[in-house]
Amino acid sequence: MSFDALWAELAPIGRDARTGGYRRHAWTRADMACREWFAATADARDFEVETDRNGNLWAWWGDPRAADALAVGSHLDSVPDGGAFDGPLGVVSAFAAIDEVRARGVVPTRPVAVVAFSDEEGARFGVACGGSRLLTGALTPDRARALRDDDGTTMAEAMAAAGHDPDRIGAEPDRLASIGTFLELHIEQGRIGIETAAGPVHGLAGLNRPVGVASAIWPHGRWRIDMAGRADHAGTTRLEDRDDPMLVLGATILAAREAALRHEALATIGKVTVEPNGVNAIASHVTGWLDARGADPERVRALVADLAANVEVTEESWTDTTVFDRTLRDAIASVVGDAPILPTGAGHDAGILSTAGVPSAMLFVRNPTGVSHSPSEHAERDDCLAGVDALATAIAVLAARDGSRVDRPGRT
Amino acid sequence: MSFDALWAELAPIGRDARTGGYRRHAWTRADMACREWFAATADARDFEVETDRNGNLWAWWGDPRAADALAVGSHLDSVPDGGAFDGPLGVVSAFAAIDEVRARGVVPTRPVAVVAFSDEEGARFGVACGGSRLLTGALTPDRARALRDDDGTTMAEAMAAAGHDPDRIGAEPDRLASIGTFLELHIEQGRIGIETAAGPVHGLAGLNRPVGVASAIWPHGRWRIDMAGRADHAGTTRLEDRDDPMLVLGATILAAREAALRHEALATIGKVTVEPNGVNAIASHVTGWLDARGADPERVRALVADLAANVEVTEESWTDTTVFDRTLRDAIASVVGDAPILPTGAGHDAGILSTAGVPSAMLFVRNPTGVSHSPSEHAERDDCLAGVDALATAIAVLAARDGSRVDRPGRT
Repeated sequence: MSFDALWAELAPIGRDARTGGYRRHAWTRADMACREWFAATADARDFEVETDRNGNLWAWWGDPRAADALAVGSHLDSVPDGGAFDGPLGVVSAFAAIDEVRARGVVPTRPVAVVAFSDEEGARFGVACGGSRLLTGALTPDRARALRDDDGTTMAEAMAAAGHDPDRIGAEPDRLASIGTFLELHIEQGRIGIETAAGPVHGLAGLNRPVGVASAIWPHGRWRIDMAGRADHAGTTRLEDRDDPMLVLGATILAAREAALRHEALATIGKVTVEPNGVNAIASHVTGWLDARGADPERVRALVADLAANVEVTEESWTDTTVFDRTLRDAIASVVGDAPILPTGAGHDAGILSTAGVPSAMLFVRNPTGVSHSPSEHAERDDCLAGVDALATAIAVLAARDGSRVDRPGRT
Repeated sequence: MSFDALWAELAPIGRDARTGGYRRHAWTRADMACREWFAATADARDFEVETDRNGNLWAWWGDPRAADALAVGSHLDSVPDGGAFDGPLGVVSAFAAIDEVRARGVVPTRPVAVVAFSDEEGARFGVACGGSRLLTGALTPDRARALRDDDGTTMAEAMAAAGHDPDRIGAEPDRLASIGTFLELHIEQGRIGIETAAGPVHGLAGLNRPVGVASAIWPHGRWRIDMAGRADHAGTTRLEDRDDPMLVLGATILAAREAALRHEALATIGKVTVEPNGVNAIASHVTGWLDARGADPERVRALVADLAANVEVTEESWTDTTVFDRTLRDAIASVVGDAPILPTGAGHDAGILSTAGVPSAMLFVRNPTGVSHSPSEHAERDDCLAGVDALATAIAVLAARDGSRVDRPGRT
């Protein structure tokens, strides 16, 4: 199995020696090194490689110009100080699974592509799934080009500096129409509560299963919270003369947690910026960002409304519940050993493609602690190999005429 | 009066067109432009200019090598997005006051210097009064050279890049011994509570007086608060599985305010850094900085102890109460029209020199709102001119043989 070798090649790229975490942000040197790894891996298999107009990478086993392709993959970029698995596991597993399918002697009846979507985490420019959203048209080219990173560099400038033409980004309806099915394997994130006959358990670890299949992605969104105050001297301004937005931040952080408990949803303030951020200066402005998700949109909206009663809240993104194609989902769950079917709170390129009408499915590989977006994100090697095996089985079934007919009811 | 012309020359340097605030951090381009202004202003008066080993600027009216100099000045650097007055008012007023003293025909019996201390705010490298602390030995050269700004640049690197030799920084006892008296004029900061026969009032505005004299600087310090957690995915981690240091920050911000109220002191968290600071990432580490001050050390210590009971608190700096030379203070207050005498919560180079044994005094110019360290920091022109006039009177008295004897009892 080629999994170990591919995993080892990719492991050092963009890794922070101090924390062990990854910084593979879009269009940075580390991202470009990951892209070079992708191209070399495809070359070694005689797969034709292309970078599409939006920076997504495609490696073709079969004819890229034929219709009804089976695309398999994930992304290579990371959050700041992220784990090794989130994204790369899906791309490495796609190559390894195709190696396995070929080794089994399967001759596909449709083109198969490994895909690595660009800028999935949105860590640099703030919009998640940038590559797939541009492809589907969910993100407009003008908005994308104007997004700025924390250093003030626009996405257009970052693309140009990396040798990618920002003038050509935008929706590719023909490419989208040619994708018959998309499969994304991903490390499990969190340990979602599941009701079983034996009572509630948490995640694949609780179910004692190495691989699961996604039912849906929870609705989720980002809100910016602006808290204005008045700059003043920390050492001389009486408490009663102050207008200190840091106090509003403190109360808002606690209120977000209380609202999440009240509505049985998730709320996180993970990013904060302070102006001027001086030790002896009362802040003039504090900005916090709220990430909120839940099992249904109503509870997420209620949580945000609770906060908006006290602070200025601006919606930066909202993604409604994404329910994956049930026929495809059930077919895959069935062929990979009656895998458990469970929802996730994390957004994915598979969700973007699903919303755009591409029948899509996701496989999850067990994460014993559930921890992700962290250097301590981990999956056992045996579980990763079980994931590759399941993906290979799914590819073999879907790339055969019978399988493809069964699994794409919406397209035939 | 030359005040208006000097003020107008300095006003555009390092001003942010968007906020109207200043960013004149040590050894940046804006700081160097301020230094050029200082040299040109001295040149125009035929004052000999020198930059001492620690980057402090001296413009000499009289012989720099003579003993018992009268130094008058303040600083030119700013906090991030600071006001126009904090620092520069004292330097501009020193030049303008000497112009006025010369116009009155006074011939000094001791050398008079205008001084602009380097890096007073500590905005870039975190240590306030860097130039005066190096001069007196309160800050060691090794520690200073190793201090880093937010971009990771050391003070040594920043000095070298600006053409200043970092190997030569350190205490200058001979220079210190040659300073007989130091006078610093500064904009009033905050509106401190003052008991009067008519009841309590706040600041010079409450007293209806344009100029005051400092009695003491409150004890003050900086503490770093480290809050560790575990990075994880904001969208998938159950609330009960989280170890989110942002919640600790929220509680600590509110606790700091409560402790300040309890101990009738000042506490401010004005600077916060978050790792990794991603919208969809539960923070792995949050650092906050506490600035605490009060009328006496006991209440400040009690405030910090209250916080330290719940979070990890590390002292980064501590400055005990500074009481200015009473004889000098009373003499100045008397000659400038029986000016009110009041303490301040803000640290100053005059405090550093006073602690090092140099008889020092401060004049405050009324700040109607008390706001400082902010673009809206302001003093009326008439009050600034009253400050120059008071400073000129003090210089004329102190630079004459009689005045100097009266005002420096500790040195004769």
